[in-house]
Amino acid sequence: MNYQRFFEEAIDQVHAERRYRVFADIERIAGAFPRAIWRSEGKVEEITVWCSNDYLGMGQHPDVVSALQNAAGRMGSGAGGTRNISGTNHPLVELELELADLHAKEAALVFTSGFVSNEASISTIARLLPNCLVLSDELNHASMIEGVRRSGAEKKIFRHNDVAHLESLLAAAGRERAKLIVFESVYSMDGDISPIKEIADLADKYNAMTYIDEVHAVGMYGNRGGGITEREGLAHRIDVIEGTLAKAFGTLGGYITGSATVVDAVRSYAPGFIFTTALPPAIAAAATTSIRHLKGSQAERDAQQRQVARTKEVLTAAGLPVMPSNTHIVPVLVGDPELCKMATDRLHGLHGIYIQPINYPTVPRGTERLRITPTPFHDDLLIDRLRDALVETWDALGIPYGAAGRPAVASSERIIPLLVPKSGG
Amino acid sequence: MNYQRFFEEAIDQVHAERRYRVFADIERIAGAFPRAIWRSEGKVEEITVWCSNDYLGMGQHPDVVSALQNAAGRMGSGAGGTRNISGTNHPLVELELELADLHAKEAALVFTSGFVSNEASISTIARLLPNCLVLSDELNHASMIEGVRRSGAEKKIFRHNDVAHLESLLAAAGRERAKLIVFESVYSMDGDISPIKEIADLADKYNAMTYIDEVHAVGMYGNRGGGITEREGLAHRIDVIEGTLAKAFGTLGGYITGSATVVDAVRSYAPGFIFTTALPPAIAAAATTSIRHLKGSQAERDAQQRQVARTKEVLTAAGLPVMPSNTHIVPVLVGDPELCKMATDRLHGLHGIYIQPINYPTVPRGTERLRITPTPFHDDLLIDRLRDALVETWDALGIPYGAAGRPAVASSERIIPLLVPKSGG
Ligand SMILES: Cc1ncc(COP(=O)(O)O)c(C=O)c1O
Ligand SMILES: Cc1ncc(COP(=O)(O)O)c(C=O)c1O
Repeated sequence: MNYQRFFEEAIDQVHAERRYRVFADIERIAGAFPRAIWRSEGKVEEITVWCSNDYLGMGQHPDVVSALQNAAGRMGSGAGGTRNISGTNHPLVELELELADLHAKEAALVFTSGFVSNEASISTIARLLPNCLVLSDELNHASMIEGVRRSGAEKKIFRHNDVAHLESLLAAAGRERAKLIVFESVYSMDGDISPIKEIADLADKYNAMTYIDEVHAVGMYGNRGGGITEREGLAHRIDVIEGTLAKAFGTLGGYITGSATVVDAVRSYAPGFIFTTALPPAIAAAATTSIRHLKGSQAERDAQQRQVARTKEVLTAAGLPVMPSNTHIVPVLVGDPELCKMATDRLHGLHGIYIQPINYPTVPRGTERLRITPTPFHDDLLIDRLRDALVETWDALGIPYGAAGRPAVASSERIIPLLVPKSGG
Repeated sequence: MNYQRFFEEAIDQVHAERRYRVFADIERIAGAFPRAIWRSEGKVEEITVWCSNDYLGMGQHPDVVSALQNAAGRMGSGAGGTRNISGTNHPLVELELELADLHAKEAALVFTSGFVSNEASISTIARLLPNCLVLSDELNHASMIEGVRRSGAEKKIFRHNDVAHLESLLAAAGRERAKLIVFESVYSMDGDISPIKEIADLADKYNAMTYIDEVHAVGMYGNRGGGITEREGLAHRIDVIEGTLAKAFGTLGGYITGSATVVDAVRSYAPGFIFTTALPPAIAAAATTSIRHLKGSQAERDAQQRQVARTKEVLTAAGLPVMPSNTHIVPVLVGDPELCKMATDRLHGLHGIYIQPINYPTVPRGTERLRITPTPFHDDLLIDRLRDALVETWDALGIPYGAAGRPAVASSERIIPLLVPKSGG
């Protein structure tokens, strides 16, 4: 056994499958989102980020940043312990109350990330319930899959958002057996929404527990940012609502909310919750400020929806293959991993636009795409520039346009790409 | 299946086993560590924390706090994406370089916590190696156990720090089979140190990989804070050194360091690394500042060692059952879960001292203890007060003294407990 050679081969395989990743070294500029500094090979340049999950730009909100700075100044930079051993800081206690209120649940529990909240909670719930059957949407996130695996429980996968398929699996299991339905509200790569009401109805009919991941919805949907379950008045019909503090809320951490009993059980049994240092008070204070702000303010949600609608409109009008999505996520189909990578390299090198290529295994082969996330800070001019850059790139690389095809006069013939000398266009 | 009743029963069982935990709501006071505000049932009081894992008090270091505040001001409160999708912020890149240098390794990889670094790295390494056998110390931390479980690899447990037992398991497996030895440098509940050199020798002899958790040693041992492996000149003999940023470095996050190849393999394959939002730039900047400071400054380590030695001396002289420990951790034996809880309640209520009781399953039954962690900020007066409070508590509750017994004149008869009316003593 030559260990070194073995790991080399493992990496060679990643290369061979064209999924070796080189991370972009990005420094976002607070106060100037979505502008950022990109460093590579000694070069430093300013770019526009079009693929951040800081969906509302709350990560640069002055109140959120001040809350973080003030709490750090008053309480220091870390929690200093696990939740049980001196780490339960007061801002974290307040954050949990805030989250329970956000989803109108009895209790909430905060984890170090959304990933950990899913893994720890799903595995603990499914392990505690005797002979539990987990019913899991086929497109569920890796963190949910890890949770299901770790539980050791039997698992059945239902076809994506397919309620009839889910029902057949529930019926086969019967009312008496413990069952946990695990699904998301917004699926982040396609931007589609699950049939929450229908799933809740089935859960009632067959006596199943429900667990929903609202990671890509909290802050952005519902009158107070409680997610799709709030918008559709369904929060009370779902047993456990999970979310993240690291996307629309702009900070770090994850959580679950539910009945006091379920939350207490996860709190008392989940190793991933118990045996790890608590979130720093500064992060908790920033998250609470962000949640409170978005509970009271519609402005960010409205602006986001407006810029998202405009982005879809403008790109579609240019003939670009915008994939159908009824959320804030705007996927544009490329359909080939090499082209996808070349397109994003060109967008960066020629147009100063940063969009990460989304390839297999994050999405199925053949559906490689650009995943674009307009925030309230992507103004109309930035959207027009994005369109022009995409059209230039589509033309240069021969990427297929959408079904409607490329319109006779695409705007790129009128506008000069942003960062490029004229000859480079 | 009545879900609600089921989770109620699960919690009842935690109560029945006397391991139901109520978290202390603590607000540490930057600039006045180890002082903190404790809130319970509407009461607000100031206490002294004696059980924090912010071992050197770096969480209140002005440079660390400023680094956090400045980075938040310049880059915002969150990373805004996973490592691959816009989340690799520049301070995180610098942090990884700093960590690789700290342990004199080719590369480092940062995770959202030490727990996740262990779970994700151990499971990925052991899963990638074909037919890997994991050899795991019986007292390894929960996060390492989770990693081993999640790998699906075969596992053999060796008796704690028992090199002969480890050798017999290695010999039985043979040189050809892939083997991963997983252990800690400092075991945090007893404060003992593993025989690193002997384990490295065995790894050479039987061609095994080595993975060490230095979570309770980094920052505190070695000339630059590189842990026990640095102090003993053994870093180059261990394949993967894992650590946390959340204890002696005073912030949040975890990491591994090792060869570029191993680190790249974990980076490319571990779901717990890939599918989660990156650490915020502010936390990364604070961690780097803390590591750099401790690379250059002996003062914190010296002061900690001095106060630790004095604490052990003073408590031992008072006849208290200080358990043997050759590190900065000072365990004091109680030996009963009820008494342990009563002792800490009394320390809090009567003496304004916060020490969390350590009961089963964190330690074996019958070895319930107070786990005391003196920092450079626990001065001589605080140590004397701790001794007096412990003696008063030991006497009041009839907890057994150490083998030497209680000296004729214990200091508690001379000094009045800190926060208590005279009649309450
Ligand atoms: C659906 C979903 N759930 C959970 C997570 C994990 O959340 P976090 O980034 O807070 O770990 C993500 C992505 O990061 C996600 O897309
Ligand atoms: C030995 C050991 N490893 C890992 C961890 C986890 O580190 P973190 O708190 O950064 O998650 C801990 C405690 O928290 C620990 O005691």
